[in-house]
Amino acid sequence: MIKPDGHDELRNPNMRRIFECIRLNGPMTKKQIQSAAGLSWGCVSMLCADLLKREILCEEKTPQATAGRTPACLEINSSKHLIVGLDAGFDHMTAVVTDLAGHILLCENRFVPDRSGKQILPDIRAVIQSVLKQALQGSIVGIAVSLPGHMDAFRGGSVWAHLFGNFEPERLSLILEEEFGVPVLLCHAPDSMASAEHFFGAARDVNNFLFIQLSLGIGMGIMADGQIYRGKNGSAGELGHMTMNPRGERCHCGNYGCLETFSSVESILRRCTEAVYAGKAPLLRRHLDSGGQLTLATAAEAARSGDSYIKNIFLKAAHYAGIAVANAINLIDPDAVVLGGELSGYRDIFLGRLTDTVKSHVWSGKTDLRAAQLGSNAAAVGAASLLVPSVFSKLCESGAAGISSKDVT
Amino acid sequence: MIKPDGHDELRNPNMRRIFECIRLNGPMTKKQIQSAAGLSWGCVSMLCADLLKREILCEEKTPQATAGRTPACLEINSSKHLIVGLDAGFDHMTAVVTDLAGHILLCENRFVPDRSGKQILPDIRAVIQSVLKQALQGSIVGIAVSLPGHMDAFRGGSVWAHLFGNFEPERLSLILEEEFGVPVLLCHAPDSMASAEHFFGAARDVNNFLFIQLSLGIGMGIMADGQIYRGKNGSAGELGHMTMNPRGERCHCGNYGCLETFSSVESILRRCTEAVYAGKAPLLRRHLDSGGQLTLATAAEAARSGDSYIKNIFLKAAHYAGIAVANAINLIDPDAVVLGGELSGYRDIFLGRLTDTVKSHVWSGKTDLRAAQLGSNAAAVGAASLLVPSVFSKLCESGAAGISSKDVT
Repeated sequence: MIKPDGHDELRNPNMRRIFECIRLNGPMTKKQIQSAAGLSWGCVSMLCADLLKREILCEEKTPQATAGRTPACLEINSSKHLIVGLDAGFDHMTAVVTDLAGHILLCENRFVPDRSGKQILPDIRAVIQSVLKQALQGSIVGIAVSLPGHMDAFRGGSVWAHLFGNFEPERLSLILEEEFGVPVLLCHAPDSMASAEHFFGAARDVNNFLFIQLSLGIGMGIMADGQIYRGKNGSAGELGHMTMNPRGERCHCGNYGCLETFSSVESILRRCTEAVYAGKAPLLRRHLDSGGQLTLATAAEAARSGDSYIKNIFLKAAHYAGIAVANAINLIDPDAVVLGGELSGYRDIFLGRLTDTVKSHVWSGKTDLRAAQLGSNAAAVGAASLLVPSVFSKLCESGAAGISSKDVT
Repeated sequence: MIKPDGHDELRNPNMRRIFECIRLNGPMTKKQIQSAAGLSWGCVSMLCADLLKREILCEEKTPQATAGRTPACLEINSSKHLIVGLDAGFDHMTAVVTDLAGHILLCENRFVPDRSGKQILPDIRAVIQSVLKQALQGSIVGIAVSLPGHMDAFRGGSVWAHLFGNFEPERLSLILEEEFGVPVLLCHAPDSMASAEHFFGAARDVNNFLFIQLSLGIGMGIMADGQIYRGKNGSAGELGHMTMNPRGERCHCGNYGCLETFSSVESILRRCTEAVYAGKAPLLRRHLDSGGQLTLATAAEAARSGDSYIKNIFLKAAHYAGIAVANAINLIDPDAVVLGGELSGYRDIFLGRLTDTVKSHVWSGKTDLRAAQLGSNAAAVGAASLLVPSVFSKLCESGAAGISSKDVT
């Protein structure tokens, strides 16, 4: 066994550096890695050999069609160490299998109509078992589960999400670890989505940003120095229960006038229902009378087609969300804010107003608001990406992988 | 010249470590420093000799009264490198001269009745000149000016503070640097006070906390990993203009329902005046009719003596401040929150209600609320303390101070 040059404690960070180079740039020759990572040739050769031995990297499968011997490109091995990322939403389960670079090798979506707490654990199990059966190549080295609601990521469970009927699986991670025999990470949904946008999406170029999830509930993920920030008790980023007006409606949390009572999809749909009953939304009423369902899409359609009362419900929700986002910006002053979740897709009746409100309320006068780039798989892929650093460290940990000097070219 | 052992780039951090040891613990022998700082004996000897040569440290002036030769205790030199800390408040100027350990050697307080922007620069000049004249020993190595309002600490000026009549001295620091020939640091008042509490006060044991200034205006200082956090544009911590109710009163900033319209001393006094005119505050009315002034203290006295309407003004202000603090905690989840500023001194009619409100609105259920420990000098001393790291680095920068081997004991 040859020790890589440099100090032993530098080995893992330098291996990580090489790995990140390839993850961000795609397949690279060792010469290219050397130049991009700023490491010595000896170091790059040694560590690449180590990463190949550990099957974290592999040689590119489709070599360039040039004459003569060309140096091999190294890429992240998609057929060895795999991660399951699971997004357990209020009405769906999305599971992906990714490689260590976050490439989706397999994806399964299930509509889960039963929102009661009891059904969640069996549903999570079933989806994981299903993707494990399909993932024939490679071996699963970890499972990451993204959950909505209020979660204690430090203690590994304790989800408070009123839409789940207050599902509280203390130590969900332990249950799953025992069952599947691999490390399990629980992630807060907005954190997963923030990580996904940082890994692949709208926030690749910034290390300090807020991700705002405008969805059934409203959540926030904070990325600080490229890491998810959770605060002292793991509860940072609780934007949905920012008090917007202490004399507002009672929230399901017990307080009054929380942002979610103004701007969540749930509250918008509730107001739309009230408007239909009050005879203020003729188009939406006609849609429902003819057997249509009340969803965000059908409400938006009515708003766009002439139900001005419904349109105002959207605009007011956007205005309050904008104020809350501005409040957060005024406290944290991040590099950028990424707006995601299903509501952010409604540019004309929601996102535009939100953006205008933010701009008129931000003290510095500077806001870098961005639309999320990733779609419905974001939380699942993001959860998987949050597991990559610890999986990578573990794979690199167990001493050098028996490299002999002939491995070093 | 002897190079200290270890790498050269370690010299400054290790010197800082020794300096911090003595600053936190008081005079120490080199043996004690070695044990507290976890450095080698050779390194401690060398660096202490260097710090003595640079007159950053000195030998303790009052040696222990024991028989025989006892090892000298080293302490921070109070007679060499000094800093002027200035708090330019809305109605006062407080200037201190401190040593590098933050000990106040000299303090001057001036009541400044003229709040107009024009008078500030002459006032700042006059106070600095006055303390410079008195500081006979030592030499001033820097000036730190703490300012209220909205300030761009990166650009070195541009104060927006409506109580100053929108004083906007672009590049105030440059003007003062030219005049006094030493580096000038401008600090945001809540940041200065946060730093003071971290240096000497309620937050000595925590590196991640919020300091809330409940005063004429309302501000927040954020300490992250032991450093003041200012965000991307230098405007983080803008708590005073958090929107508490978008349908609230118009704020001087142009928006509606900002926290300052509910809970600043200014808004409390305005409401008290209205109450007197409306005949709702008989005790306060009698006080004013007999020639007394309307101040926070006299209003509080009336509230305590039976003016229930005035008491409710305080309690409502405290409630809104509590909600804002809870909103900030729910976003940032800090280790602790330090409550300072003159309003925090009114425990019975303000701080108690604020604390109760915070507790009922914090998601994690965990709050470590602390009262500020430092008094009216906090901003001035804190500003000086914020200048210590750069002054210290500069003093250590210019090569080793000609230490010869005989200096090393």
